[in-house]
Parts: sequence; structure tokens; C-alpha cells
Amino acid sequence: MGPIDRVRVRALEGGTAIEREDVLAVEEPLEIRIRSEERGPPFSFVTTMRTPGNDEELAAGLLFAEGVLDCRNDLIAFQRPTDPRIDSELRANVLIATVSPGASTRASRLQRGTVMGSACGVCGKTSIENVIPSDHPPLNAALRVSADLLYGLPETLRKRQSIFAETGGLHAAALFSARGELREIREDIGRHNATDKLFGTFLVRDELPLSDSILMVSGRAGFEIVQKAYAAGVPVVASISAPSSLAVELAQATGVTLVGFLRERRLNVYANPERVGS
Amino acid sequence: MGPIDRVRVRALEGGTAIEREDVLAVEEPLEIRIRSEERGPPFSFVTTMRTPGNDEELAAGLLFAEGVLDCRNDLIAFQRPTDPRIDSELRANVLIATVSPGASTRASRLQRGTVMGSACGVCGKTSIENVIPSDHPPLNAALRVSADLLYGLPETLRKRQSIFAETGGLHAAALFSARGELREIREDIGRHNATDKLFGTFLVRDELPLSDSILMVSGRAGFEIVQKAYAAGVPVVASISAPSSLAVELAQATGVTLVGFLRERRLNVYANPERVGS
Repeated sequence: MGPIDRVRVRALEGGTAIEREDVLAVEEPLEIRIRSEERGPPFSFVTTMRTPGNDEELAAGLLFAEGVLDCRNDLIAFQRPTDPRIDSELRANVLIATVSPGASTRASRLQRGTVMGSACGVCGKTSIENVIPSDHPPLNAALRVSADLLYGLPETLRKRQSIFAETGGLHAAALFSARGELREIREDIGRHNATDKLFGTFLVRDELPLSDSILMVSGRAGFEIVQKAYAAGVPVVASISAPSSLAVELAQATGVTLVGFLRERRLNVYANPERVGS
Repeated sequence: MGPIDRVRVRALEGGTAIEREDVLAVEEPLEIRIRSEERGPPFSFVTTMRTPGNDEELAAGLLFAEGVLDCRNDLIAFQRPTDPRIDSELRANVLIATVSPGASTRASRLQRGTVMGSACGVCGKTSIENVIPSDHPPLNAALRVSADLLYGLPETLRKRQSIFAETGGLHAAALFSARGELREIREDIGRHNATDKLFGTFLVRDELPLSDSILMVSGRAGFEIVQKAYAAGVPVVASISAPSSLAVELAQATGVTLVGFLRERRLNVYANPERVGS
């Protein structure tokens, strides 16, 4: 199944009812399995709810954000299950990542065998202390951006989102260059997935860290978005809506510039404002 | 810390920058521990990111949705850790639920020791098959509602949300009677949490199932929202935005009437339209 599904709905407007077709964002589970390039059978690492499309990039980004993949070299190949006894629909919802022995060992340690909801980005951490890392150096990227440049990003994002995404059914995550050019945009029913797909794209291309870039997300900025930006080396995160208190704390601790309520030539800077010129 | 935090922000509007105070939704981890009323020490069941407030109702609703609590009698008491060596801030983020021996056994089986994101409602299911249950009878509640009654719900919801929630920082879940009267509303940075807080409130009062009620959520309707409504016996679920494809499938399979895009005297019915009169 693709990213979009068509269903029959009963549409009411005032006192009038009609039957018509409607378009929905697809939400289906993706099971990510890990196999070491050296030995052993694949094991199930995690199942996440996602909108189909860019599955490999989603898996790469998720495995990077979770600390399984440290760099491009840890990722050897992706493949679908080949056993013909497996139903084809099920096969489309399973992805096997062959990884380096080191990455496989890290995956076994982290292994959780849980289903994550569409917007869940921190499954697998086992204690409160793990939520905010204390042993990582803050980003010191030299990037500076003007408010005028930031004001233009939401319009660029909207123009490049699918029509369906504009209706509110999909979240978007986009990477912009220091000059405000759109580099890539990814969409998903879960905003964490959209960000994982985006950073996974650059991991697969071996283009991390993204020290000269701006991450823009269509929804709110929770702390996992800041966590993923920090891991990818992105020094500026912007959202059109509110950040959470923990996102602000994490941005302050990790040296990430956090911009919220970016709309109609206005914005708020919640952390590290020195990167934003008025 | 309460549900709202105040921070200093650098606010830019056009070319003008000022420093001012801004209000944020708090996002903090809540660790839910389980203790059997009969024996043994408490064990950590799950850590979820939530907006502080109504913690007991959140825990009750989450444990009910996860299948740990089958009914009110399974829940004996809630308490905070009493060990004075535990930091007070940490103590506010831990809640111990004393439960029946049967519920404790179910919790041990489900035990996952994971952190869930704010919007994560399905952690702990270990395979794709578990996502859509096949062995549960569909709801056959006799409730019928008019389109006019539904059209009025978003305005009632908006009036009763906190001002902050209206800015987009918090999700709301509300239960309405068959006559459209607001029974309860709960808010959280995660929409699954808002729904768990709502149903947890009624579980604690021993008022489940809610066969004569309508659930209204402020955001999109993912399949976990339908799952939770089905578990609580709510036959009509309405959201102001889009449902996902899996939410529609699950609503069809469980006999839940699913209404989306409920705004400006319009709505779409995605499943079981016979409960909605035009």
C-alpha cells in the first residue's frame, strides 16, 4: 500500500448528506529487523507505526537516532524478507537491515521488541535520567541566520508539501541550507518518523553531520526532535508551533538554537538566540 | 512543576526583537510502578512523557488501555515514593499503583521498561498481528446522535480548553453525553495521554463502560484513540482533523462510529455511519 488510501465516507454539510470518496494518510506497522554482516539470523529490533514510503530512510534514521548506527559504514544493506511463504502485504511491512558487528551488538543491547506509536521517538530508554543526556558536548556550529531568512521557510515548506499534507493528515520535516534553500523534505503521519526519514536520507548519502543546515518541522517541537537534530549535528531547529519545556531544556543543554511559532513574519527563539540575527 | 512553565524568549516581529516571557506546556517523564497488594516489591512498569497534572488518572487510564486493569476493583491505591533519600522533583515523577494480584501478573507479562513518547499509545505490543485485535466483539451500543449535535461540540471544546491549549501547545480529549453536554475534559502535550487521563477519570469512579457517550479529541484520530474508545465502550469518536487509515479499519472492525474533519457545520463519517442522523 502506498502513502495514501482512498475510502468511502458519508460527508455531511449542514443538513445534507452525500457519499463520496476521501483520501487518508496510511498508517501501517514497519518491523525493522537487524542482521549482523558476520553471523547469526536476523532478530526483530522494533516495530514502528509509519506511513509507507522511504522505509529504508526511516529505518536508517531511526537506527541512527537510537544509537545503533554510529556512521554510514555501520549500514551494509537493506532487504525485504525473501521467504515466499510470507504474505506479500506482511513482507512490505518488514525491512531487514544488515549492519556491522558493532552496530549489531548495540542493537542487541537496546533490543526492545516493542511497537512504537507514530509519534514515539524515545522508546527503549529505561530511566528518567536517560531522557536528557549530560555527557555530550554542546554543538558549536558557526551557522548564523537572519530572521528574514527564517520568515520565508514556512511558505517554502507549504509549497513543497503534498496537498494531502496541507490538510493536516501528514507531518513534514525539511532540511534547509544556510541560504534558505530547501534540500530535502519528508512526510509521515508521525512527526518523529518524518524527521527520521529526513536524517536517514543524509545518513545513507554519508552527508552527516549537517552543521550548516536548518531543520524545519510542520508541527510542534518536542524534545525528541531536538534530540535527533543534535545527533545529526543540525544547529538550528524551527517549528511553526510551540516547543515543549523539555525541548527547550534539551536545546539549551546541547547548544541547539530552538525557534518556535515561526509564522507571519514572527518567531520566538527559546534557546541559543545568538545564531539568529534580527 | 505544574502543567505550564514560564521561560524567557527572544521574540522577533519583522525587524524588531524584544525579550519577553513566554508560556510553555511542560513535558516531563512519569514512571509508573506496579505493586501487588499481596506481596513483593514494586517494579517499574513504564515511563511515559506527560504534562504533569491528573497523574493518577493518566496512570489508571494507561493501565486500563494496556490491559493491566480490567475493572475498578483491580486498582487498590496510588502513592508517591516515600523514601526521603529520593529527590523531591524525581518523586513527583514517580507514581506507584497498588493493584490486585491478577493485574500484577498481567503487568509482569507486559512489562517493558521503556520510555514512551508523548503520543505513543501502543508500546509493548510485540508483533504486527497485535495491532488490530480480531477476537473482540464489535460494540453494539444503541446510541444515535444528530449531525447538529456533533456540529456544536468543537465550540464547546474550545470554550472549555485552557487558553494555552488553544495556542496549540496542548491536546484535549473530552467526553460528551448523548445530549451533547460536556462531562469531562483533560489536556496533555500528548493526545494519547489526554485520552488516558479522560478514561482513567471514569475508571477511578467506576463508571465504565461509557456506552452512552461521545469522545471528542482536538487533534487527529490515530488508531490508538479508537482502540482506547473501544476498550472504554465509547461508540462514537469525533475529531476535528483527519483519521489515519488504520483508525478507520479498526473502527470498522470494532463497531465504533468514527467522525473526522468536524468543523464549521461539516463532518465526515468514516465508519459505522448508522449512528449519525443528518
